[in-house]
This record gives sequence, structure tokens and C-alpha cells, in this order.
Amino acid sequence: MRILVINGVNLNMLGVREPHLYGSKDYNALVSYINDSARNLDIEAVCFQSNHEGAIVEEIQKALGRFDGIIINAGAYTHTSIAILDALKAVGLPTVEVHLTDIAQREEFRRHSYISLYAEKVICGLGFEGYKLALGHFASEKQ
Amino acid sequence: MRILVINGVNLNMLGVREPHLYGSKDYNALVSYINDSARNLDIEAVCFQSNHEGAIVEEIQKALGRFDGIIINAGAYTHTSIAILDALKAVGLPTVEVHLTDIAQREEFRRHSYISLYAEKVICGLGFEGYKLALGHFASEKQ
Amino acid sequence: MRILVINGVNLNMLGVREPHLYGSKDYNALVSYINDSARNLDIEAVCFQSNHEGAIVEEIQKALGRFDGIIINAGAYTHTSIAILDALKAVGLPTVEVHLTDIAQREEFRRHSYISLYAEKVICGLGFEGYKLALGHFASEKQ
Amino acid sequence: MRILVINGVNLNMLGVREPHLYGSKDYNALVSYINDSARNLDIEAVCFQSNHEGAIVEEIQKALGRFDGIIINAGAYTHTSIAILDALKAVGLPTVEVHLTDIAQREEFRRHSYISLYAEKVICGLGFEGYKLALGHFASEKQ
Amino acid sequence: MRILVINGVNLNMLGVREPHLYGSKDYNALVSYINDSARNLDIEAVCFQSNHEGAIVEEIQKALGRFDGIIINAGAYTHTSIAILDALKAVGLPTVEVHLTDIAQREEFRRHSYISLYAEKVICGLGFEGYKLALGHFASEKQ
Amino acid sequence: MRILVINGVNLNMLGVREPHLYGSKDYNALVSYINDSARNLDIEAVCFQSNHEGAIVEEIQKALGRFDGIIINAGAYTHTSIAILDALKAVGLPTVEVHLTDIAQREEFRRHSYISLYAEKVICGLGFEGYKLALGHFASEKQ
Amino acid sequence: MRILVINGVNLNMLGVREPHLYGSKDYNALVSYINDSARNLDIEAVCFQSNHEGAIVEEIQKALGRFDGIIINAGAYTHTSIAILDALKAVGLPTVEVHLTDIAQREEFRRHSYISLYAEKVICGLGFEGYKLALGHFASEKQ
Amino acid sequence: MRILVINGVNLNMLGVREPHLYGSKDYNALVSYINDSARNLDIEAVCFQSNHEGAIVEEIQKALGRFDGIIINAGAYTHTSIAILDALKAVGLPTVEVHLTDIAQREEFRRHSYISLYAEKVICGLGFEGYKLALGHFASEKQ
Amino acid sequence: MRILVINGVNLNMLGVREPHLYGSKDYNALVSYINDSARNLDIEAVCFQSNHEGAIVEEIQKALGRFDGIIINAGAYTHTSIAILDALKAVGLPTVEVHLTDIAQREEFRRHSYISLYAEKVICGLGFEGYKLALGHFASEKQ
Amino acid sequence: MRILVINGVNLNMLGVREPHLYGSKDYNALVSYINDSARNLDIEAVCFQSNHEGAIVEEIQKALGRFDGIIINAGAYTHTSIAILDALKAVGLPTVEVHLTDIAQREEFRRHSYISLYAEKVICGLGFEGYKLALGHFASEKQ
Amino acid sequence: MRILVINGVNLNMLGVREPHLYGSKDYNALVSYINDSARNLDIEAVCFQSNHEGAIVEEIQKALGRFDGIIINAGAYTHTSIAILDALKAVGLPTVEVHLTDIAQREEFRRHSYISLYAEKVICGLGFEGYKLALGHFASEKQ
Amino acid sequence: MRILVINGVNLNMLGVREPHLYGSKDYNALVSYINDSARNLDIEAVCFQSNHEGAIVEEIQKALGRFDGIIINAGAYTHTSIAILDALKAVGLPTVEVHLTDIAQREEFRRHSYISLYAEKVICGLGFEGYKLALGHFASEKQ
Repeated sequence: MRILVINGVNLNMLGVREPHLYGSKDYNALVSYINDSARNLDIEAVCFQSNHEGAIVEEIQKALGRFDGIIINAGAYTHTSIAILDALKAVGLPTVEVHLTDIAQREEFRRHSYISLYAEKVICGLGFEGYKLALGHFASEKQ
Repeated sequence: MRILVINGVNLNMLGVREPHLYGSKDYNALVSYINDSARNLDIEAVCFQSNHEGAIVEEIQKALGRFDGIIINAGAYTHTSIAILDALKAVGLPTVEVHLTDIAQREEFRRHSYISLYAEKVICGLGFEGYKLALGHFASEKQ
Repeated sequence: MRILVINGVNLNMLGVREPHLYGSKDYNALVSYINDSARNLDIEAVCFQSNHEGAIVEEIQKALGRFDGIIINAGAYTHTSIAILDALKAVGLPTVEVHLTDIAQREEFRRHSYISLYAEKVICGLGFEGYKLALGHFASEKQ
Repeated sequence: MRILVINGVNLNMLGVREPHLYGSKDYNALVSYINDSARNLDIEAVCFQSNHEGAIVEEIQKALGRFDGIIINAGAYTHTSIAILDALKAVGLPTVEVHLTDIAQREEFRRHSYISLYAEKVICGLGFEGYKLALGHFASEKQ
Repeated sequence: MRILVINGVNLNMLGVREPHLYGSKDYNALVSYINDSARNLDIEAVCFQSNHEGAIVEEIQKALGRFDGIIINAGAYTHTSIAILDALKAVGLPTVEVHLTDIAQREEFRRHSYISLYAEKVICGLGFEGYKLALGHFASEKQ
Repeated sequence: MRILVINGVNLNMLGVREPHLYGSKDYNALVSYINDSARNLDIEAVCFQSNHEGAIVEEIQKALGRFDGIIINAGAYTHTSIAILDALKAVGLPTVEVHLTDIAQREEFRRHSYISLYAEKVICGLGFEGYKLALGHFASEKQ
Repeated sequence: MRILVINGVNLNMLGVREPHLYGSKDYNALVSYINDSARNLDIEAVCFQSNHEGAIVEEIQKALGRFDGIIINAGAYTHTSIAILDALKAVGLPTVEVHLTDIAQREEFRRHSYISLYAEKVICGLGFEGYKLALGHFASEKQ
Repeated sequence: MRILVINGVNLNMLGVREPHLYGSKDYNALVSYINDSARNLDIEAVCFQSNHEGAIVEEIQKALGRFDGIIINAGAYTHTSIAILDALKAVGLPTVEVHLTDIAQREEFRRHSYISLYAEKVICGLGFEGYKLALGHFASEKQ
Repeated sequence: MRILVINGVNLNMLGVREPHLYGSKDYNALVSYINDSARNLDIEAVCFQSNHEGAIVEEIQKALGRFDGIIINAGAYTHTSIAILDALKAVGLPTVEVHLTDIAQREEFRRHSYISLYAEKVICGLGFEGYKLALGHFASEKQ
Repeated sequence: MRILVINGVNLNMLGVREPHLYGSKDYNALVSYINDSARNLDIEAVCFQSNHEGAIVEEIQKALGRFDGIIINAGAYTHTSIAILDALKAVGLPTVEVHLTDIAQREEFRRHSYISLYAEKVICGLGFEGYKLALGHFASEKQ
Repeated sequence: MRILVINGVNLNMLGVREPHLYGSKDYNALVSYINDSARNLDIEAVCFQSNHEGAIVEEIQKALGRFDGIIINAGAYTHTSIAILDALKAVGLPTVEVHLTDIAQREEFRRHSYISLYAEKVICGLGFEGYKLALGHFASEKQ
Repeated sequence: MRILVINGVNLNMLGVREPHLYGSKDYNALVSYINDSARNLDIEAVCFQSNHEGAIVEEIQKALGRFDGIIINAGAYTHTSIAILDALKAVGLPTVEVHLTDIAQREEFRRHSYISLYAEKVICGLGFEGYKLALGHFASEKQ
């Protein structure tokens, strides 16, 4: 089982960016955490990060036939990108949306997610652990 | 570690109610699933279900000092009950909100959650598994 | 043919409550009127009144397998209760919504009905007679 | 007792128009059904159909002094015509609004009725039977 | 100087329609009043009344080259007819909008006038007198 | 018959202010025009102009018992002053609202008038002539 | 003079619940305070607290003929319960609405009160003292 | 192949009406242009123009069984007529919506089209040519 | 203890202005009532009334260091004046907002209070008595 | 005559993406179709596709002086990109907007087009054929 | 070169009013700062402060012919005064709007500026320095 | 002192793009102007321009530790990019927002700036000079 883990805009700034909200561990730590969690679940996880909406769209497009599912935290593009929503719908893979914080508790403009209109599964506010739970979900699905 | 698991209005109808949305297993199956998951994680879970907004409020009030955390799926009261939000804020326990379906994909009036204004953690669209992940979160917290 | 007739919050105050709007006959008169109308139509009607949203939800849940249809005037819960809507959808019985007054002519917040999102039949503004017409509808259906 | 029954725009297309919504019987069948129902109730019903907003307005205007009440299903003009509302208010006859389907369950723009701002009685979603119930209401009024 | 005076939907019901709002004089009295006022001002006024939106549109279209100005009280079409607005813009004659009552003091849906988007002159709430003032305005313009 | 004519904020700038909208004659010309018009109608008109909301309120308050009616063009306060509305309601004199331009054709924020909620009579877009028509209305009332 | 004092949902949590907002005294202290205040004013106050919307509705219904007025702090039901509003209108007793905090300064969804649509008197932000002032108002009324 | 081409309200004013927007050719020129274009494509086009909403509705109703498709430019009724939408849905013929100008660039109230809710094809802003393209579309469909 | 009591626009019209709403006693009676109430509570009250927004702003500014608290009924400025809100925030004195009527029961535009965004205490609908209660609150605070 | 044909985000997924909506032919087929159509019309068409908003902006910028017109289907960026609108306005070339489907019939957020605020011509719902019609429009313009 | 510098409501409270937002220097310090800055730029600056909307309107009116430009910080009137906007438009002088804080970051009701609808230049959030930059702008213009 | 000056989408089109709005000087002229202004103020300015949202995000990310402040004119991304806002918040450098025109005077969708939610300083409508003033602000800060 192969899962594509997409982290979107500004997630490469983890540890630097508002640590009271996002925690003090950096993006490399997140990748290690995801890889460790995947290995424990016998999943092959491939991490991808980009600050470019178009690059995220294309990474999703290329996932077709190469991955069994997608875990996506699109950062701010969650709230503005219909293009990413359309890409997810085009490839049609099972998808789990993850957010480090609970976006419902922040500014009004962060409360709406285009991605949720496709992803039937959403995990918010659990920090790094959200990715592990998402992986665990795929693991239990394959049994 | 003791966790109170609250299931709100109409969740006793599981298996009967719109099985294409909520699955075909009934409420007893959900309770068994939660108890098994908790046992594996060395957590004591206490399940409570009610169709009465006031009864849910009072169950939350009584949790103070008796539980270490709350997992809540309030059903339709998620969208209409400021009273449950206030009760959660009054007792101040760590709380995870769970929904069987992704409420962002359903009718407009199901997209807003008063409970999310308190619960910093939300898991949607993972069915029964959402409860296990929520329990798992409490388990990893206590380490 | 057995029909459950649910009268919701404050309908026990009939005759006392704003008689210029709701008429001067009391709730017992309404029950007699419904029973007489049903008997003429060879229907067994069972009347239930409650001021508790949760109790109405549970009465609807219990109707499954015991009744052939539901007539409901939920009073003010018409406008605020997603829980009652969900209960009606869960049991899936044919349902007629009745209101004594035409709610479209009253305050803005009385113009929206959650129950209409399930009940395909609505009768407003005909007073007690609305219940008789609803019963008559079930009678003609069974022929 | 004389009742004017007005059917508005596109109701002459009954049987042709979206039969899953409006049924397969045509407008003539509706007229027969209304006439039969009226005869049983000892009412003289006069049916009028027009696709012209202005013609409906004028038919209402001419009803003054010639009819004891109006039953109206204005079709799409229900949602757009303040002129028909004003005509009904001008003649001031008791009026029952009928819709074949429950307009609350359809597109957003069909949820608002100008006619309900005058007609205190509304019957929705009962198909042809709605007209019979409306006639029955006038019959019981005259006793 | 020739002025076309258009009275729209339900204005033929004057005297009958809500006399506390519109007064007890009928439409013929209004025509006489307009004709008398015009004669005193040495204006030829031609009165036209219709309950049909399309007929009002066509009367406006035909005014081009035959009249020097238009006085229009479109009744309820004031609030719903973009077609009448477009007809007025197409012929481009100087136009005064008249209302018997002050539409700003009535229901929300009567507060918006499509006709005001063309007519630069509006007179509200002066009853029959509004027409005389509008005629007087044309008279003073021609001097 | 004594009429108070109130001109509000920036009307002392007539002739200077956006002459393509408001014309090239100045405020003194307006006062002369009003006085001449009044004299012809055998009315005593008293003109008052102020740029201060509070001063306009007080002038209205003092009109009680000293004037038979008020003509008011409050300028920009039309759209923002509930205080002037309240003053007009407090003294209860017959009031005609006048605007030099048709406010419905200008910016969105000029389309709402608090004063229209009291004044049942409104004349827009007729320039200076609007004041004469308003005076003429009072003259015809007294007959 | 007998006054019913209703405290709604979560008010039994006083002292525990967000003490920076609601103060550190508990519900028993509030009851004592109310009883003492009432005794000084020669009023018989009966305190009632419930977390159940339906129970509050029924307590109001039973007040008819047994009390001379109602003081109500419905807690979160203030903002969501049309049912309580309807109960108050049904019994028609003079009613004072009390809130411990100024609800206008809190979250958007706490700024609207259904109860204010009936209660002509509202006291906000004065803590326990608000109840004393409300009682004092009834006392001065009876003189 | 027979196509009905409907031109709605004020399109008979072409050449007269705002020529900077709609061009200087008149309605007869449009009919000739449509007929010539149809002949080249071996299509029989029948042109119909009316300023009456009801007449347009009825023309659409009569198209059933007599035409293979409809091209419609309803003029201002585009934005206000649910009745025309319903007529189109009732007959169910393939339909292309045409506008001479790009309605998205004009006043706010011209941006919404009821007709687009049925017509899957829309051509805006191409002047007379839009009709030719619409005809060409039907021509290529039939191959 | 010195308290500044500010009465805003049109409160000098008490007794004249809509007596069914505001009562028949005049402003002098209100001042006497306030002074008597204050004396009984051993408070020095200074009453100030103005119809000028700017004058109210300056009176508030000057209160700094001279008064221990402010009671304010700003009249219509309650709903439109951010300037008064800013002045209250600038001086930072404890402030009680008073309204003679319950503004929540009146026109939509009277339901919002800028002053409530600063004043933590609000008393509505108690007539003159509201001022006494506000004074009583300051008296109890100082003990 | 040289025309730039821009296809935006996810249009490279044609044939894969939701074929019930967008058809089963792929992007290469679209390019061939466009090239063939252009050759028949004696136009040189240059096709460009990108998933990057910035790349589309720059392609538009470079069109100045090199192309005679632009045909653009921006995909999801239609609804979110003011940047593309600004680029089109900056180069000022004649532009036709094309959509494969009728965006007015899909989700609410697809109903608004920033590009329509510049492009005076829009063709929706005609599939590949829309591009041919757009090219045909440029061809007829050059004659 | 002569520049009028207008400071509106509550700016005389500088140093006292919310110093964390507006700084600790008082209004006299601001005047000195402006005068010094102007002298360095060889500009004659005249400072005017008022808490009265009407007085600000009149100061702007009097600027015509006496000043070469206006710098205005209207305080809270920025958000509520159409009258000041109209006065600025009436005199037509070049105008720079200044705010000490960035009003876009504060309460919702401070985000809209009527003055920005006239002033093409706006400087926010730079404290006293904003006035110097505005003066510098006029200085560079005159070269 | 080192300042990063970011110019966003379409600013490379200066001189070409709508010169009546943005002036006739090109982007190179802007860079020279900024460099000259910076040199005079003894600041090292580094100019960056990109049409790619992601590239702007990354340029901001890299500024951390290399620059003392940011001046940003994001062009159309001002109104749509939460990603740029998040990047600015992540690096936390002092930031001045500049716009060549006053965005408050243009289309509705240009009136909202996500960047203003971070940047406390905004300069609009001063053309190139805005950049100089922004640099001057940093210069005066460092003293």
C-alpha cells in the first residue's frame, strides 16, 4: 500500500511559524514522524511539500495509478483553491484531509474548506498525530 | 485514564437510520467497538447516549473530576446547541469531537458546529474508526 | 391503519395561548376532534403531546413498525430542531406536517421549517381542520 | 357557494411536465377531479387556467361579488408575482393556496411565496387531493 | 405637448383596493383628475391602464415619436419588471415615476424600484396630486 | 399657513458642489425660489439651513406649534440620521421629503432614507421645482 | 406578590463555569441572594433551575394564575429557544430578562435573544445584582 | 431539422434601443440574418418574438413535437421569469441560450439567468453571430 | 461619589414624543427623578442633555477625573455613533447604558448598540426606573 | 491571424476527469480539434496549457503584439483569479471565454467568473465545439 | 503652498485614549510634529481639530480657494459620515486620508471608510509619521 | 539596514497596463526609483518581482534573518492569497503594504486585503512615491 502525503503552502516553515499554534518541531521532524508511523503500519508513505498551487495540482494528477490514497494538508490553499479540489476529483483516490490545528476555531476565512467537498474524512487539531491516524485509517481499510 | 464517550440524538438509531450514510451496524455494535478499542489502549471508556439536550448537558457537568477527557458526537445537536458548548466550556476537560460522516459534505445547516468552538480536535467521516482514533489520541497523550 | 399524531411544544396550552391566533378550544378538544375524525375515516389515531424535543424524537423512533404514518405539528421546534428532522428521516414513515396558522405570515424566524425538508405534505392555516384533512389523506392513500 | 379555482402558468402542461414530480394525469383530469369533488360537497367550482400573469390578475379582480372564495395554484408566479398578491388583497376573498408538490423541498427560489403573505391557508404536496381538501375546507366553513 | 400617463397593474381597482391605503376614489376619478389637471396646464394627457406587463412594455415602445414625456405608476411591476425598465431606456423619453403611497414605508419588497433606475424624477405619497405635480413639471419644462 | 423648509448638510454649497448633479444656482437662489413660490401660493415659508445634525434636530423640535408642516432635504444626513427621524416623529407635523436628484440612481449608500420612514410624501429628481411642488401640496391641503 | 425566578441551562454550574466571566459564587449563593433580596422587598420569590428546555417551558406554563411575574435568565437557551418565547407569550405574565454578563459584548451568536421579543425589560451585565433590581422593579410596580 | 428561435421582451426594439450596446441593425435584420444562417446549414428556423411572458411560455409549450430544438434570448425575462424556465423544463427540448451582450458585465441584476438553470449551452456577447453559432451547434449535432 | 448622567438626542422631547412608547412625563421630571434617586443613595448626580453628537463626545471627554462613573442614554446616537463609543473607551470610566424602552422589540435598526460594545451593563425597558437602578448599582459598588 | 488558446488548470486531465461532465476525449484530442478547426478557418492557433496561475498570467502578458486574440478556458482559476483578469486587461486583446460545461448549472462557487468581467464574449456548455465557435467568431471579425 | 490638516473626533484625546493603540503623545505634540514637518518642507500647514461632524464639514467648505490640499484623519466619522465625504467632493481639493492605526486590523465596523471614496491617497498605521509623509507628498507634487 | 521590496503579479506590466490607472512608467523605472530613494536614505533595497503566488511565498520565507523589513505590493494576490498572509506571519518581519492606486475606490473585490491583516502600515494611491514613503518610514524607525 502506497500513500501520497501532501503538505501545502508554508508547511516547510514548521517550527518557525507561530509555534504557539503549530508547535516547535520542524518540517523534517514531521516527515520523520510520518515515515516512522507508516513503517509501523507497513505502509509506504511518500511525502511531498510545495508552496505552489499548480505544483500541488500536478502532484495529485500524477498520483493516479501510483498511489492507493492521499493524505493532504494544503495549508492556506485549503480555503482558496478550487483547482486542488478539481484535481482530487479528477484522480478520484480515497483522500483524508488533515489540519494541525482546528480550523473551525480560527479566523472566519479559515472555516471553509474546498477540500472537504471531496475528502469524506477530516482530522483537525491533533498536530502531527493527525497524520498517523490518517495512515492508520488506510491501514485498517486494507485489511 | 477514564474517558466519557457521549453519543447524542438519534445515534441509538444506528443501523436503522439511512444506512447508506451511517452504515448498517447498530448502536450496541458501536458500544462494543468503543469498549474493545479502549481495552486495547488500556483506557476505561464509559458510553452514554441520550436524545435529550438537557441530559447531555448534565452528563457533561457530572464528568468534572470523574473523567480525564470527553469524546462527543452530539448528532444534530452539534449544529443547534449552544447549551452543550457552554457545558463543555464549564467543565473544561480535553474534548475530541467525532462525526461518522463528513458534515462538510452534507446540507448547509450541518456545516456549522458549535462544539468545534470548544473542541480543538475533530475527526469526521471515518465511521466507527473515528472513536478508536480519538481514544488513541488520549492514550498517546497520557504517555 | 394506525396513525401517530404528534403535537409539540406549547400545544398543550391551546385555548390559553394567544386565542386570536390559535383559537379558543383547548388541547383536549383537539384530541377529541382528531379521534372523531379518525373514527369516521376508519383510522386508529394515537395522539401524543410533549414539550420536550428529546421526547418527541423518541416517540418518532418508536413509531417504526407500529404505525403507518405520522402527522406532526412540532410547534416552535419546527423551526429549530434538526434532531426531529433526523428522527423522521431515520424511521422513514409517510409524514404530513400540520400547522394551525399559516407560518409564512408570521415572524421571519417562523418561516423556515426543518420538518418540511422531510415531510412532502404540508397543511397550514386551517386550524383543527388541518388534522382532519391530513387523516383524510392517509385514508385515501390506503384505498 | 361558488369557488373560483385558478391554475397558473404551465399547469396546462400537467401529465407532460416532469411526471416524476407532478404525476401523469393531465389538466383535463385535474378539472374533472375538481368538479367531481366540488359536486360531492355541493359547491359550484369554476376552473380557470392561464399562463399570463395579467390574465390571472384580472380573473381575480372579476371574482369580487361573484365568488365566495378562491383556490389558487399560481405555478411559478407564486414566487415572482407581487401583482397577483395585490389583486388578492384588493378583492379580499377567503383564499386557499395549493401546490401539487412541497415547494419547501425544491430549489431555493421556490421556497418563497408572495401569495402566502395573503392566503392564510396553504396545502402542499398532496397532488390533486390538495384541491379536494381546499374545497372541503370551504364546505365546512359554510356550515 | 403630449404626455403619456401609464397606470399599471391593479390600478383599475382603485376605490375597491385597500381604501385606507389608496383612497376611496376609483380609476375613472383618477383619469378625470389627470385630464382636468392637464387641461389647466395646456397639456394633452393620454391615460393608459393595463394589468399586463407585456402590454405596458409595448405602450412605452409605441410612445416614441408620439409623446413628449411619460408619467408612470407601474403598480407592483415597479418592483419586479426589468422589462419595463428596458422599454423606458429604449425609447429614452423624459419620465416621471409616481406612486400614490410612499413605497419606502411599506413591505421590504416594495422598497426597490427598477423604474427609478431610469426615471430621474420620483413623486411618492401624494395620492392623485402626484400626477398633477408631474404634469406641472412637464409644463414648466416646456416654457 | 406656515411651512418650515429645512435644508441640511452641504446644501449651502449649491452652485459650487458637483454642478453636473446639483445645478449651477447657489443656495441664495434656492431660498429666493422657495420664497417666491410660497408667496404665489399664499404660504409663509421659513428657510433654515444647517450642516449640524443636532441643529437640524432642534429646529424640528422647535417647529411644534409654530408651523403647519415641514419640507426637508437633509442632504447626506438622510441616509445616516436616526436622530432626525426621531425628531420628526416626536413633533408629528405633516412632512414632505425633497431631494434635488433621484437618490435611487446614485451610490448604494444613498438609496436608503431614514426620513422616508416618517415622511409619507417624497419628491426626488426635480431640482428646485421639487420644493415648489411640495409647497403646492401644502397649499392644496389647506383648501 | 409572588415572583417566579427561572435560571436556565448551566446556571447550576455557577462558580465552576468560567469564573472570570460569571464570578466565583455558586448557584446556592445566587438562590440565597435572591431570597434575601425578595424578603427585603416583601416579595415571595420561588427559584427554579433546569437544564432542560422542555422543563423550563412547562414551568412557565404552570406559572399562570400562581405568580405575578417572571424573572428569567435562560442561559444559552436565550439564543436558540423559540419554544420558551412561545411559552412566555402563552402565559402573558410581566417578565424581566436578566443576564449576568452583557451578552452584546460576547460572541456574535449570543447577541440575539428570542426572549427579548417578549420581555419588555432587560438587565445585563450586573451579575447577581441584576436579579435584585428586577425584583425591585416588581416591588415598585405593585405600589 | 426544425429550430424555434425565440426573442423575448424589447428585442423588437433592436436598432432603436441603446445602439452602443445592442448595435444599429433592427429586428427584421436579425430575422433575415437568422434565416440566412439557417438556410446555409440546411436547418428550418422559425422566429418568434413577444413582449409577453405568458406568450413566450405558450410558444415553448407548443414546440413539443414540432421542433428539434430551441434557441432563446428572453431579454429581461431571463432574469425574472421562473415561468419560462418551467416551460422549457416541461417540453424538455435541447436549448441554447443566447445574449447579444455579455450579461456578466452589466448591472448586478442582469447577472443571474433562470434560463441557464435549464439550458446547458450559453453564448453571450457575440451579437447576431451568437444565433448563427447556436444554429451551427444544432447542425453539427444532427450529423 | 459623583456620577454623570448623559441623555442624548431627543430626550429633551420627553412627554411630547410618542407618549405611548416613552411615557407622558417630561425631561424635567426625569431630572428630578434622577436627582431624588441619587440623593437617597448618597450620590451626586449631574445631568447633561444634548442633541449634538459632538457635544456628548466632549462631555464624556471632560468627565475624566471629575466623575466616578457614567450613566448614558444616547437616544438615536446609540445606533449610529462610533464617536461616542470611542469617547467612552478613551476615558475608561465604569458605564451603565440605559434605555427607556426595550430596543430589542423595535425597528431592526434600533437593535444594534455601539455603546454596548463598551458598557458592560445595560438596563432596558424599565422607564425612569432604569436610571434609579443604574445609580443603585454604583451605590452598591462603592460599599 | 494568430490566436492564442489558453487552457488552464486540470484541463490536461481531460478524458480522465469526471467523463460524465467533461467527455471522454483527452487533451491531445482537444488540441487536434482546435488545430483542425483553425486550419479550416485559415487561422493560426497556438495552444497553451498550464496548471500554474502565474504561468497563465505570463503567457497572457507575452501575447501582446504576437497574437490578434485570446481564447481562454481557465478551469477553476476562472472563479478565483483576479490576477488572470488583470493580465487580460493589461494586454487588452479581444478575448473569448469558453467553458466545456455550463458553469451556471454547477456548484454555487462556479457561477462567478472574474474573466467575464473582461471578456465580452462567453460560450458555455458546447464542449469542444465551443472552441471552434470562438475561432469562427475571430474569423468572421477579420473579414 | 498651504495645506489644511483636519483631525476629527476624539483626536484631542491623544495620549489619554488607549495609548497601546494610539501612542502616549498628546494632541499638542501632534500639532508641533505637523508644524515642524511642514516647515522643513516649506509648506504652511494649518491644523484644525473638532469633535463635531458639522464643524468639520464647514471647515472643509471654507478651504475652497484658501488651501492647496487637505490632510484628514476624521476619527470615527471616517466610518459613518457621508456628509464629510460630500463636503470633500464639493470643494474638490486634492486630499490625503491618514489614520494613526491600520483600520483594516480592527473591528469590522472600522474597515469601511467613506472618505476613501473621495481621497485617492491613504496612509494607515504609521502613527504621527503618516502626517509627515502626507505633507511630503504635497511637497513633491508642487515641484 | 536591508529591506526586501516585493512586487507581485502583473507589476512587470507597468507602463503597458491601464496607464490611466497605473501611470506610464515601466517596471524598470520603478526599480530605479526605489533604488535611488533607498540610496538617499542609506538603505539597501532588494527588489523582487514575480507573477507566481508560490514564488512570492518563498521569497518571504527566505527573508528571515536576511532583511530588516518588507515592503509589499502583491497586486491582485492582495485580495485572494491567504498563503502570502501566512508567510508574512511566519517570518514576522515589520511590513509595509503599498498600492499604486487607492484600492478602496475600485471594484468591490479589490476592497479587501488579506495582507492588511498582518501589515500594520498601509500606503495607497501615491504611485511610485508610496514606495519612497515606505522606505522613509523604515529609515526613521532605525534612528
